[in-house]
Amino acid sequence: MDGLMMDQPLLLSGLLWRTERLFHDKKVITRLENGGYHEYTYADYAKRVRRLASGLELGGVKPGERVGTIAWNHYRHFETYFAVPGMGAVLHTINMRLFPEQQQYLINHAGDTVLILDEDQIPLVTQLVELGIPSVRAFVVIGDGPLPETSFGPVLRYEDIISTGSEAWEFPSFDENTAAAMCYTSATTGDPKGVVYSHRAMVLQSMCLAMHDKLNMSESQVWLEVAPMFHANGWNIPHTALLQGATLVFPGIHPADGDYVKIIQDLGVTGMNGAVTIGTMMRDFIKDSPHDWDLRSLTTMWLGGQAPSRAIMEWWADTYGTWVVQGYGMTECTPQICFNSIKSTLSGGSEEDTFALRQKGGQPIPLMKIKTVGEDGVELPWDGESVGDFWVQSPFTASEYYDDERTKENMIDGWFRTGDVGSIDPDGYVVIRDRSKDLIKSGGEWISSIDLENALMAHPKVREATVVSVPSDKWLERPMACVVPEDLSVTEGELRTYLAKQFAKWWIPDSFLFIQAVPKTSVGKYNKKEIRRIYGEGGADCLVTVLGAADAPLASR
Amino acid sequence: MDGLMMDQPLLLSGLLWRTERLFHDKKVITRLENGGYHEYTYADYAKRVRRLASGLELGGVKPGERVGTIAWNHYRHFETYFAVPGMGAVLHTINMRLFPEQQQYLINHAGDTVLILDEDQIPLVTQLVELGIPSVRAFVVIGDGPLPETSFGPVLRYEDIISTGSEAWEFPSFDENTAAAMCYTSATTGDPKGVVYSHRAMVLQSMCLAMHDKLNMSESQVWLEVAPMFHANGWNIPHTALLQGATLVFPGIHPADGDYVKIIQDLGVTGMNGAVTIGTMMRDFIKDSPHDWDLRSLTTMWLGGQAPSRAIMEWWADTYGTWVVQGYGMTECTPQICFNSIKSTLSGGSEEDTFALRQKGGQPIPLMKIKTVGEDGVELPWDGESVGDFWVQSPFTASEYYDDERTKENMIDGWFRTGDVGSIDPDGYVVIRDRSKDLIKSGGEWISSIDLENALMAHPKVREATVVSVPSDKWLERPMACVVPEDLSVTEGELRTYLAKQFAKWWIPDSFLFIQAVPKTSVGKYNKKEIRRIYGEGGADCLVTVLGAADAPLASR
Repeated sequence: MDGLMMDQPLLLSGLLWRTERLFHDKKVITRLENGGYHEYTYADYAKRVRRLASGLELGGVKPGERVGTIAWNHYRHFETYFAVPGMGAVLHTINMRLFPEQQQYLINHAGDTVLILDEDQIPLVTQLVELGIPSVRAFVVIGDGPLPETSFGPVLRYEDIISTGSEAWEFPSFDENTAAAMCYTSATTGDPKGVVYSHRAMVLQSMCLAMHDKLNMSESQVWLEVAPMFHANGWNIPHTALLQGATLVFPGIHPADGDYVKIIQDLGVTGMNGAVTIGTMMRDFIKDSPHDWDLRSLTTMWLGGQAPSRAIMEWWADTYGTWVVQGYGMTECTPQICFNSIKSTLSGGSEEDTFALRQKGGQPIPLMKIKTVGEDGVELPWDGESVGDFWVQSPFTASEYYDDERTKENMIDGWFRTGDVGSIDPDGYVVIRDRSKDLIKSGGEWISSIDLENALMAHPKVREATVVSVPSDKWLERPMACVVPEDLSVTEGELRTYLAKQFAKWWIPDSFLFIQAVPKTSVGKYNKKEIRRIYGEGGADCLVTVLGAADAPLASR
Repeated sequence: MDGLMMDQPLLLSGLLWRTERLFHDKKVITRLENGGYHEYTYADYAKRVRRLASGLELGGVKPGERVGTIAWNHYRHFETYFAVPGMGAVLHTINMRLFPEQQQYLINHAGDTVLILDEDQIPLVTQLVELGIPSVRAFVVIGDGPLPETSFGPVLRYEDIISTGSEAWEFPSFDENTAAAMCYTSATTGDPKGVVYSHRAMVLQSMCLAMHDKLNMSESQVWLEVAPMFHANGWNIPHTALLQGATLVFPGIHPADGDYVKIIQDLGVTGMNGAVTIGTMMRDFIKDSPHDWDLRSLTTMWLGGQAPSRAIMEWWADTYGTWVVQGYGMTECTPQICFNSIKSTLSGGSEEDTFALRQKGGQPIPLMKIKTVGEDGVELPWDGESVGDFWVQSPFTASEYYDDERTKENMIDGWFRTGDVGSIDPDGYVVIRDRSKDLIKSGGEWISSIDLENALMAHPKVREATVVSVPSDKWLERPMACVVPEDLSVTEGELRTYLAKQFAKWWIPDSFLFIQAVPKTSVGKYNKKEIRRIYGEGGADCLVTVLGAADAPLASR
């Protein structure tokens, strides 16, 4: 006996169908470089999405073809989000911050046939064409002025494609497992790996994010999308905002830290999502002229990429009443795996307990199954103590990397091996202890670099801290801390004493380097691979030289 | 290019997987007839669900078999909700309030092989067995005492099946389009029609309800399920509460109006769902001893079946700050189609405008497409004026009735024709004007019985009102109002004057009957078919005699 329900596929165009009708008067707003704002309604948006899809179709783009984008967060990039998948093609968002050689690799690997780029990306694309991206048969430039001269071609203006397209174009229906988008991981080793998202996966992930009471994405939100739209579909937040009819705000081209602050104040933004460093940089910007800014409209700040420190959670709560929330996700999971919320039965604990809970990666979102697996391959208990490989399974988790032999290392018995190491507590909150490759194996025991980093970053005199493994003759590996001071009076001795209260003696890093900034990956995570590389080539002194010594001489270092 | 995502089906057991781990300590609470409460946790619940599924399997129940239930709202009925579909069988919830002949029809039509019943239903089942339900090969009695004597068999105790089952039983995986449950419509003409729900439909509907900010079903809710669990899976609320980890409260066996009030006060219930009449009856109960009750914990009251009156919305808001919310749904849609929420761009209007908006059926929930169709088969504009047949399409809408020729009347070009007549306003709010068959065709023009009823019920001296069509020599049909006074001083003249301010003269009913109570269907809706039948047999005087004249002589009638 089958379920006798309609066979209606979960398609992104289905979300748009509803939003353009029910929330036709709600707005999509983009910061312009002249300090003003571009704004239009979801009704206008949907018309332009149809025109773009229709225009691309007229231009010969076929279902299944990959259309690449190299663009900032703005309304036109958002138009490609629904137009390209809506017509059955695949939106390939390309990380603007990768090296050109990596970008060349992934354009060729994906086989992009059309490349949509912001005008300021012409020099980059010139380089890419010189390196060789033969599958691309047309370039589409987003901009408001006349078409600039380029050494590559054929080049079309984005607005000309919109003009040629038809507002009356209708979205086709097809299987919900059809590819909608793709994104390459910012691989820290080897070539990037491609993840292909289906319509089904993106619709289900949007619904799960919309359900979450801590993210609180309801129709009345005014949401600022700071996370780059090239990174895992902007964490799927643009789709979720559209699904709920929330006002959606984009920071536009070349935003600076102060721009985010200004946008929030100008537009009464109520929620935002971005890397942890954004929350820190915004705070620093505000601290320079605190009386100029009132950001009390901002109730929710989702910070991702790594766990936000207690200090940053407290500063935002104390200053503006903003709730900093975090989760745990990755490109392969569309992207969210867990999201942090304080279960009612765990609320009312001490301040210490509450912050400890809030710094965990959170509980798995609906439809997501998780487990930790020990070295013997056996599933570990959810006791908050047992640490093992972290595996996940869901309808929005990749079953393979696109055309990539490395799939077989990560996909096992229907589960995806994340490469993270962690534990799960009895209430299902995950604590990610490390990337497998960042674990420090000292004298046969392991040390979590993330635990040490989190502890260091909770120290009031520390702004940023990362801990990496360095070779040791005696112990094989030992931890080394790189610290960016918040307060230049901080001393190594002070940090040692502080860590000794929380960790076994052999966990304390052997050396502490005080530097200007921790190098970051293209998506804002600490780039430990780069630190290990520089250290490997020149040792600690070289590392301090390259990264810059902390601004002033510090006492008793 | 396919989406390279895991092929993980949407199954009810997947929801349970998460809840038993993340919300293991949250509670399921049932009112007992002795005035106390039975309570256990979702962890206990999940163990018993496994035992039940395992026990039924040991008893020979196979995937695809239909397992019927005739039971009240309590934790054991809720166990069947996940155990029966979890093992791949189909849960057929039988309406306790139908006539035995109708129940016999639908048990035979569904081909139920097992019947699970509350002990107090033994006399009913004795009747059903005498009428003939040959497909049933075993009866399972829910109760706490020893097994009562019955004239039918074989009879097993529910708790014995739980005891024989295994806690370690594992849920199988299967196609998400597999049938999970079935429910027959409370057809007002002809035999009931069977709707078969798939796992996919129920999971998606649960997610859509969980997303809704006016229903507000979050983990911290304490939700009282008043709507009968035999009716469209209890409006899918038990599944939604479980999905979100909310505390779930059941009113148990034979609840009275005062029991709902007591439960809310005892347990600090924050939300509930039930028929509109429940909201009225609870109010009346409280009014008798207002100082005994403090229900300020109750923030959300979802009233369904028909539009709640402004008076009832105001009373609950003024008395306890409770927000009365409504929607529009039907058995064929798992069940919700629309849900009412005030869009931020429509908030801040006058009190009149706000109540007018809140009395609409609401906007379509995510994944649901709606349209109105004129007599010529052409889709009508969303202008709030054009009235036509209301059609719907979604992954949780039936594509056919189970083994029923009548499917072809209702399913057209991939859309379900609801049988309701209404309009859609420019923001997608639907106003259901009538069931097609309840429309009054007077002198070639139509009159909406629902519009007249809503207006009458908004009058402070009116408790209940229904308007039905009666034959007219001159006009073919004319409206007749049946009114239950709130205040016995109400007069026909007063109501005529009141209606004349809102409606054209020819809409005003020709006659007003003042009665004790409007007859209701088995799911609490006004039974207009019954009123028309009695009127047809004996005229207005007979109708007043059968329904009872309003308590006391009323002036100037």
